Amino acid sequence: MTVLPETPAQRPVLRYTAGQLTAATDQVVIEEPLEIRLIHGGEEQTVAVTMRTPGADHELATGFLYAEGAIRDAADVLSLSPWREGDVEAPNVLRVELRSGFAAMRSLSRHTFTSSACGVCGTGSIERLAVRAVPAIWTQPPLTADIIRDLPAQLHAAQPLFAATGGLHAAGLFTAGGECLAVREDVGRHNAVDKLIGWALGQGLLPLSDHLLAVSSRAGFEIVQKAALAGVPVVCAVSAPTSLAIEVAESFGITLAGFVRGERFNLYSVPHRVNSGGRALDSPS
Amino acid sequence: MTVLPETPAQRPVLRYTAGQLTAATDQVVIEEPLEIRLIHGGEEQTVAVTMRTPGADHELATGFLYAEGAIRDAADVLSLSPWREGDVEAPNVLRVELRSGFAAMRSLSRHTFTSSACGVCGTGSIERLAVRAVPAIWTQPPLTADIIRDLPAQLHAAQPLFAATGGLHAAGLFTAGGECLAVREDVGRHNAVDKLIGWALGQGLLPLSDHLLAVSSRAGFEIVQKAALAGVPVVCAVSAPTSLAIEVAESFGITLAGFVRGERFNLYSVPHRVNSGGRALDSPS
Repeated sequence: MTVLPETPAQRPVLRYTAGQLTAATDQVVIEEPLEIRLIHGGEEQTVAVTMRTPGADHELATGFLYAEGAIRDAADVLSLSPWREGDVEAPNVLRVELRSGFAAMRSLSRHTFTSSACGVCGTGSIERLAVRAVPAIWTQPPLTADIIRDLPAQLHAAQPLFAATGGLHAAGLFTAGGECLAVREDVGRHNAVDKLIGWALGQGLLPLSDHLLAVSSRAGFEIVQKAALAGVPVVCAVSAPTSLAIEVAESFGITLAGFVRGERFNLYSVPHRVNSGGRALDSPS
Repeated sequence: MTVLPETPAQRPVLRYTAGQLTAATDQVVIEEPLEIRLIHGGEEQTVAVTMRTPGADHELATGFLYAEGAIRDAADVLSLSPWREGDVEAPNVLRVELRSGFAAMRSLSRHTFTSSACGVCGTGSIERLAVRAVPAIWTQPPLTADIIRDLPAQLHAAQPLFAATGGLHAAGLFTAGGECLAVREDVGRHNAVDKLIGWALGQGLLPLSDHLLAVSSRAGFEIVQKAALAGVPVVCAVSAPTSLAIEVAESFGITLAGFVRGERFNLYSVPHRVNSGGRALDSPS
């Protein structure tokens, strides 16, 4: 059996348990974009950008190209190598030389961009996001741990379809006081957030200063990206955040809480908006 | 608070519990493509196809367009309506008339296709999939329930990174006898499957007749699609399948098991490859 264990990233967190926040170190999964470029007959073209966990990148590229019909077997790939110019190598850009099929791929490139995030495609970098991000503003008193801990139960109570099918993600928008304004469900996490922000847009609520976004799932890049674009200052996820989600949250001043379950949660960025026992918190050291 | 409860679909299943398979009805989440078309100045262009759960489609479209920078507020959208020609209406094609910004969207359309599936984009229909799908062939004796029940534990044992981070999906390839050949992890479900199939391609294992694909997550369209393209006859998911995943599995002769947890699982399609107590099973009635 072949297994490729990857190294998770270490990140400082504030861990909330038993009424107390304590500094700790958390292991988080790495999320980074992989750009797949095809080379054939002297031409080079990007055909996909996918948010992935680094490792087995060659397999990812060939598996993707197979699924898209660009290759039929391993021999259709003449070479795979990271982009390199002089001494500079970009491990997140993979150049794939094909034996044939470049014409098909040119047409495919207009139709296929993958991403574990989706909605990421073409705006995958923090730099590009910075152009359009809205300041994350919090003018209210610090949040209490109770408000954060209460979010999953409120999401769950508003998720009739998940209860029936077990197959849906939910996203909810909450006031600074923890009042639930709206919940949307979808098979896709990013769709649930798009529905929610589309609703808020129609209500004239944007930018979403002093609001909380809660998701029933993990927090990947695309969730925090959409929060940054709508000016949401606090994002809470029932499950794990990724390395890139934390980086984006830090970059745009968003408080990111993860593993919000039962009596516990972790704070991954901008923790000073959360108050423990009447005491505002410092940044994780 | 606004909540939009959607109606799940009813599907016949064979439910395995306590050593027995019994016919039952399961509620599954609906997954269907939504195509977003922009209209401006007499031009019309598809800018996104996303696999979504129907409902709140207008909000989904406006939220998506906001995240992509195509609109800044609700007034930028002049109208939203399903595609219609004469008496024919396509509720899965949404036409959005914009006040401005069409030039930006033309460029964006080359960069952005969303999908809760990813890798789906542009090949979203069963019809298109049929052109490239590989026959799902099973020449071995029927699978025992034990082999299926054992898959999640094998996946989990081979998932060192999930154990550390809680943030990853795994996909595993197994022989007809339940031996694990390879496991791949990723933040994206589709990436984990692409890595696995890319590995199998490099090993010369395709088409994957008499193999099982197991995923640690839900089974959406894109997972079953990738199985169909690689000729995998049995797909087992730890969590829920979607309506479209079941439809694809039925169309391409793939045995789809869901909620494979502990002593239980459900069979959603082609159940005759699974044997209960020495007796081959009929189709769910």
